Amino acid sequence: MKSSGLEPQIAEMFDFAQTTVTQAREVALKWFRQAPEIMTKDDESPVTIADRSVEQFLRDAILQRYPDHGMLGEEFGLSHLDAQYIWSIDPIDGTRSFISGNPLWGCLVALLRDGVPVFGIIDIPFTGERWVGAHGQGCQYGGVACRTRQSTRLEDAILYATSPDIFTQQEQGVFDALTQAVYLRRFGGDCYSYALLALGQVDLVVEAGLQPYDYLALRPVIEEAGGVITDWTGQPVTMHSDGRVIAAANLAIHRAALEIIATK
Amino acid sequence: MKSSGLEPQIAEMFDFAQTTVTQAREVALKWFRQAPEIMTKDDESPVTIADRSVEQFLRDAILQRYPDHGMLGEEFGLSHLDAQYIWSIDPIDGTRSFISGNPLWGCLVALLRDGVPVFGIIDIPFTGERWVGAHGQGCQYGGVACRTRQSTRLEDAILYATSPDIFTQQEQGVFDALTQAVYLRRFGGDCYSYALLALGQVDLVVEAGLQPYDYLALRPVIEEAGGVITDWTGQPVTMHSDGRVIAAANLAIHRAALEIIATK
Repeated sequence: MKSSGLEPQIAEMFDFAQTTVTQAREVALKWFRQAPEIMTKDDESPVTIADRSVEQFLRDAILQRYPDHGMLGEEFGLSHLDAQYIWSIDPIDGTRSFISGNPLWGCLVALLRDGVPVFGIIDIPFTGERWVGAHGQGCQYGGVACRTRQSTRLEDAILYATSPDIFTQQEQGVFDALTQAVYLRRFGGDCYSYALLALGQVDLVVEAGLQPYDYLALRPVIEEAGGVITDWTGQPVTMHSDGRVIAAANLAIHRAALEIIATK
Repeated sequence: MKSSGLEPQIAEMFDFAQTTVTQAREVALKWFRQAPEIMTKDDESPVTIADRSVEQFLRDAILQRYPDHGMLGEEFGLSHLDAQYIWSIDPIDGTRSFISGNPLWGCLVALLRDGVPVFGIIDIPFTGERWVGAHGQGCQYGGVACRTRQSTRLEDAILYATSPDIFTQQEQGVFDALTQAVYLRRFGGDCYSYALLALGQVDLVVEAGLQPYDYLALRPVIEEAGGVITDWTGQPVTMHSDGRVIAAANLAIHRAALEIIATK
């Protein structure tokens, strides 16, 4: 995406981020389908050398260029969270896809200024697809402007979640109630589902148990594509959200879905 | 795949099939993410002009070349099922993925001789990936031999199914019991999950409610890659199977999974 409409210093960071994420593709792809050893983190989620190598690559590149910026990464944690600028990094969103050879995992990078994401990148190394959104600049897929479906109603909506296994029993009840209200629900996808929403292919993604690095990069992409992304109470997603996320193609679907959530 | 080890007339059909499936890619991709109208079939599953156009293209090509062959297709049904050679066609396996912009749908083609699949093709137009298996010739991914994981045990296995929504309540109980026995379960994928099994990335795919055109092309791919694909009682999948399918990376996993299925 051209960055001419952004403030010069943000434009420079945005160009740098896009270049660096492109370079990180080969770091991830080197390990894809090569049976990297799978380790288990404290939260019992899997991680591989691919996740760690990609995050290390991105951190090193960012801190070399912007040594006083903060960092919020999946694998190496937090640093300088009092900085004005903080980078959110999920090196491989969809590690469970990655370790099973499924190509729809992605690299997520966002820049936050004073806690608010100003740009976000969803990059899918295997397919070479990329979605970028920057504040006030719109959303682009492969360099072309894209937009959510503005007129879909809830009853015609396509609903996604990565897996039923991300929900508690109560949350599953909420998701099942939403399922009853839509045209179609599907599982799978991780960040790819949100990217499809930005592309006008999916209308609703409802998930729980997410971490800030899972959703911060999604916010500029979805909002700039004309969609809405909040927590389950309708509040904007921030570093401090509770991990329950709803993304919707338009305000009408968002409102209708929140009403169903509120009754459960 | 070179067809030099096959009987000449089968080799010729195999070459023809691979060429024709390549030609069919553009028929499908022309409609992908272009909001084709979604119609609903008698079984309430969705279908679009893309499904029908691809199947029509493949049928026309096959019947022009082999007018006395039989045909078993998803959209246009059965013809000449008393023929020695029958073609099984699923023009777009994963229509629900297709209509939501998800790229992991595929085109499945198999040739049956006297009811037994002699070769099968799993083609993924968007990613340009292809798996082919022909009797006695092994399995290839992108022209390179591939093999299932021969030594994975059930407790280390990665288990896939397209969606929990394909199961009856009793079948869901079986799937949940298998989930307890494996390392990881994931949803999503349609034919792509079986292709990942042939590639040595996934160890177990357990589904129900499938139609013959959903699984007949999978059998040569998986068997030639060193895997096993049967119904839930361990019988080979044929045109007359009940739609409950289990594919396993090796005999040990297959046996262990069937034991769990039998107790449920």
